[in-house]
Amino acid sequence: MNKLLVVGTVAFDDIQTPFGHAEKIVGGAATYISWAASNFVSHTGIVSVIGDDFPQEELDALVERGVSMDGLQVKAGEKSFFWAGRYHADMNGRDTLATELNVLADFQPIVPDSFKDADYVMLGNLSPQVQMSVLEQMSKRPKLVVLDTMNFWMDIALEDLKAVLTKIDVLTINDEEARQLSGEYSLRKAARVIQEMGPQYLVIKKGEHGALLFHKNDVFFCPALPLEEVFDPTGAGDSFAGGFIGYLAKTNDTSFETMKRAVVYGSAAASYCVEKFGIEKVKEVNSKDIHNRVGDFVRLMAFDTPISKM
Amino acid sequence: MNKLLVVGTVAFDDIQTPFGHAEKIVGGAATYISWAASNFVSHTGIVSVIGDDFPQEELDALVERGVSMDGLQVKAGEKSFFWAGRYHADMNGRDTLATELNVLADFQPIVPDSFKDADYVMLGNLSPQVQMSVLEQMSKRPKLVVLDTMNFWMDIALEDLKAVLTKIDVLTINDEEARQLSGEYSLRKAARVIQEMGPQYLVIKKGEHGALLFHKNDVFFCPALPLEEVFDPTGAGDSFAGGFIGYLAKTNDTSFETMKRAVVYGSAAASYCVEKFGIEKVKEVNSKDIHNRVGDFVRLMAFDTPISKM
Repeated sequence: MNKLLVVGTVAFDDIQTPFGHAEKIVGGAATYISWAASNFVSHTGIVSVIGDDFPQEELDALVERGVSMDGLQVKAGEKSFFWAGRYHADMNGRDTLATELNVLADFQPIVPDSFKDADYVMLGNLSPQVQMSVLEQMSKRPKLVVLDTMNFWMDIALEDLKAVLTKIDVLTINDEEARQLSGEYSLRKAARVIQEMGPQYLVIKKGEHGALLFHKNDVFFCPALPLEEVFDPTGAGDSFAGGFIGYLAKTNDTSFETMKRAVVYGSAAASYCVEKFGIEKVKEVNSKDIHNRVGDFVRLMAFDTPISKM
Repeated sequence: MNKLLVVGTVAFDDIQTPFGHAEKIVGGAATYISWAASNFVSHTGIVSVIGDDFPQEELDALVERGVSMDGLQVKAGEKSFFWAGRYHADMNGRDTLATELNVLADFQPIVPDSFKDADYVMLGNLSPQVQMSVLEQMSKRPKLVVLDTMNFWMDIALEDLKAVLTKIDVLTINDEEARQLSGEYSLRKAARVIQEMGPQYLVIKKGEHGALLFHKNDVFFCPALPLEEVFDPTGAGDSFAGGFIGYLAKTNDTSFETMKRAVVYGSAAASYCVEKFGIEKVKEVNSKDIHNRVGDFVRLMAFDTPISKM
């Protein structure tokens, strides 16, 4: 049984979309990642921090899905991380209305002994220093380290980010972040520059426009599923990451061929996530649902190879 | 041998991109469509109008590729249609700097007798009245009519556009235009609304984000090929249309399965188009080149169906 270590926020979100307003609901990168990954792996450990304001039943629900809370620090008398944002009418952009770091301000991650030998590590979007600290606590080099980050860290902690990039295998960022990090507009060129920084694999997440997986000179594309409605994009990237690394941990295979399939599984998890507010839908689905949705992706991309038809 | 009738501009463009400035080069929808289609069909007829300022050798080059100029009106003492535009730094947007209708101002299309029985008709982006006039001149209902249009006609000639939409089989527009025409943000819902307007098939072109083909409740997605450099997006949509209908005319098969392959062939033609300024690259490539590039698309989308891997 392969262990998966997940680092990221466990937090509250306040989300406004054209479809409604969800006030102070449960969110956080580690929450989404763990829910999505729990469809594939039964030994996930969270490293994070919360205040004493976080609902115990939400943690219990994750424990039920095989997620260990041994690495979750609870700070008495303090408040959990809080983010408020409003999505634009087209859902592609969003404004941050509030960010309250609270317990995250001086977060020192502690990897529990039981997960120091985890073969699969998902470093969710947090400061590069926190991500590096987690890697330094591992008792051996994990089989696969996936790191998610964002432009904010490129702006204020680029050197720290570059340092941790030399220690990881897969980087997941969006297209604008890939351009910022590499200084190249062409995503093909950007991928080459970023691979030279450390990660052998690069996933460029383009939201409703799908995801690209780069490795050496190879590239694989997985579209987003055209949905009837997108209610709330929050957590889509983290659900993707959870499905992606969860599938790899389950198969215990990190070849490029398997990683392509992992991108499809991650995209399937993300496609469910956006159908309801917050983590609601991610909690509802099971591995069979995700498997069925992968079938939708297969159909979306399927055409007879035309080589034989000309 | 299936005949293809192509209606659209034959014109001059002035194009500024971050990579340079091409002054008064040959362009026009019918030009790009015909070049791309000539990789698949040897009996194409253009319906268009030019002034006496258009270079004869450019017409001769098309005739060499099997394109008939019987339907091309030449207006002595008048000037050809001229468009000038400047692309934004990210190549996704562009500003129109000048539009000189010239001969197009009072264009009355005349379908030559030799193409009135064409089975395949590509109505390039022109006024819906011109597009309707062409259809009315056909001696029989073509096997397949594809129509390209743009937001401009939705703004100023919506009723005429809706009238011609009832007479066609495939509509090609971009995602914003699909939203404008349908009043639906979700592309899935938009596709349903637009199919009710007439066309059984809808191609939504998303530029660097690929293309979607909708038919009934089915959807097929073809990505754009991630390229090292995009020099000039001008004509990409028309090259797509030419490759798309050219492939269908060649196979003489308008089933959904074949139409999916046609989307890939169209995308391959478009991917070449943007690699150089204007029609330069579209003129250089042949059917073997396009076929090879289709192989790149196959590889870009290929992954082992995971159904058997779980």
